Amino acid sequence: MSDLFLRACRGERVERVPVWIMRQAGRYLPQFRAVRARVDFLTLCRTPELAAEVTVQPVDELGVDAAILFADILLPLEAMGCPLVFAPGEGPTFPEPVRGREQVERLQRPDVGESLGYVFAAVREARQRLAGRVPLIGFGGTPWTLAAYLVEGGGSKHFAHLLGWSFRDPEGLALLLGRIAEVSVAYLRGQVEAGAQAIQLFDTWGGLLDEERWRRLAMPPLLEVLHGLEGTVPLIYYLQGGAHLLGAVAELPVQVVGVDWRLPLRSVRRLVGPGKVLQGNLDPAALLAEPSVIEREVERMLSEGAGGGHVANLGHGILPETPVENARAFVRAVQERSCGS
Amino acid sequence: MSDLFLRACRGERVERVPVWIMRQAGRYLPQFRAVRARVDFLTLCRTPELAAEVTVQPVDELGVDAAILFADILLPLEAMGCPLVFAPGEGPTFPEPVRGREQVERLQRPDVGESLGYVFAAVREARQRLAGRVPLIGFGGTPWTLAAYLVEGGGSKHFAHLLGWSFRDPEGLALLLGRIAEVSVAYLRGQVEAGAQAIQLFDTWGGLLDEERWRRLAMPPLLEVLHGLEGTVPLIYYLQGGAHLLGAVAELPVQVVGVDWRLPLRSVRRLVGPGKVLQGNLDPAALLAEPSVIEREVERMLSEGAGGGHVANLGHGILPETPVENARAFVRAVQERSCGS
Repeated sequence: MSDLFLRACRGERVERVPVWIMRQAGRYLPQFRAVRARVDFLTLCRTPELAAEVTVQPVDELGVDAAILFADILLPLEAMGCPLVFAPGEGPTFPEPVRGREQVERLQRPDVGESLGYVFAAVREARQRLAGRVPLIGFGGTPWTLAAYLVEGGGSKHFAHLLGWSFRDPEGLALLLGRIAEVSVAYLRGQVEAGAQAIQLFDTWGGLLDEERWRRLAMPPLLEVLHGLEGTVPLIYYLQGGAHLLGAVAELPVQVVGVDWRLPLRSVRRLVGPGKVLQGNLDPAALLAEPSVIEREVERMLSEGAGGGHVANLGHGILPETPVENARAFVRAVQERSCGS
Repeated sequence: MSDLFLRACRGERVERVPVWIMRQAGRYLPQFRAVRARVDFLTLCRTPELAAEVTVQPVDELGVDAAILFADILLPLEAMGCPLVFAPGEGPTFPEPVRGREQVERLQRPDVGESLGYVFAAVREARQRLAGRVPLIGFGGTPWTLAAYLVEGGGSKHFAHLLGWSFRDPEGLALLLGRIAEVSVAYLRGQVEAGAQAIQLFDTWGGLLDEERWRRLAMPPLLEVLHGLEGTVPLIYYLQGGAHLLGAVAELPVQVVGVDWRLPLRSVRRLVGPGKVLQGNLDPAALLAEPSVIEREVERMLSEGAGGGHVANLGHGILPETPVENARAFVRAVQERSCGS
């Protein structure tokens, strides 16, 4: 029965720094690949028993201090009526990208219990299997990041459709962001009600914007989601490639700010202020080196993170080519070396 | 006969802000597409008459204040013995990526006059065709960015090979970077000798590193290149996604620092100090909006850039889907609205 992670998220003094890994339920793990060999990605998301099984795997295999639900940030967009396709080796695509107001108006307002009930069932099943060993984190994408995928129709190099829209018709884009925020609140509250003990919001593409545009476009729908969740469970906001936005991030009503490795935690803390717990931030590529390098890098990260609340993690998702032994070395290094804050 | 751009690069007081556009010789321009319909990308690079023709096109079509040589940053790597393939619609790839010391040792030390003479011929031809109307910029990639492509074998999402190598064997990677720096000095000096009147170094992937690793890995070979060019022509260092590195960039012996749109120029100037001319930094996606939006955004950029030397540009390459009329509106807006610094 460990609530170390949750206590750290709440900013309480803890006996050591907790650790988990973004994408810890994933391709680098043979046990995960064995499940994936039997079903495709979306079927895995939609089958609560299997989603719960892979959610728990890294707790068994690595000994992390928290589990994170296996799901995909794009599922609520599918529930809004946007067909979602995972082509093998290609990543997620939306064959019918949303690029104008008329399309926004045609988006559905789903009953999340009906269309995303399988996610809530996976949360309940995972909580049962975890049996209190470690807390379970639920998650979603920020409205801006979800819109990025939906407008581009998948991943993108330049995000020309999204950013072009942001200049051509910012009010129209704001309508889309608002609709996504609305569904996100219901979806994430549903996860909490099903048993998620913390919620992480992934803002993979927030860093595309300068601060002025981020405040104008990305922040309002994000605040709508955060306010909709306030007072429920600890909230983690993870921003990738957004060192230039941390002054604004400081204002978000979240307990924890997750960052990538580009800025040392000491500098992040200066920018977001002493009131936030920091999460991160080892470069995932460090886990491709031998354990002695991993240990040295963990030590550096822990010393940068000292002087305030810290949840250890990578700065981005674990790379599929990471040896499991190295992921274990990372977790062990944090658990053995860190001391209370 | 205009040397406005060069005077601005040298930090002299100028009558107005000069303007050019990264990738101004490119796919958005019908005249460029007409040439490309006849020859493939590498043939275009290797045919001085054609490379010079497309170099001059945007001067005729947009009225920019500088021309930039049409070439590719990866050409010197090919000269080092690494086959380079431009598959249609796929971008450049190296079918034999370099991922270890043994491969570094097998790299060739080319006679650049022999293997890259076609680039120098294009410079001479372009200078002749420009006949002094505007200055000609030569360019190359920084050693770090060139290595990124060579190690990954092309573009990449996570740069796992490059960053993994940087943790596993930083000395081995430094050998590769040193070899690239060596060839780059000869290559860029060759461009200057052929008539390039400024040199821009593109650091597309420098922002992958935190400052400590950037200083340790990317900066030494970059300094080698910059020192090898010192005292020749104005040097421009362009960094993408590197707002977190600007404190270190301030130390580079270059006259001009080019940046993307993520940080307003006023903040960039605070970080790099008053001694540098700034280049940039409109979001290229702004050129997908109507001219009135472009004019408003240009005004904002010019006011952010005021109070020090400024060369107007986009913050990244012009998007292929940009209407030519909008590129013209951008150039015109700068030329009509800006005043001396």
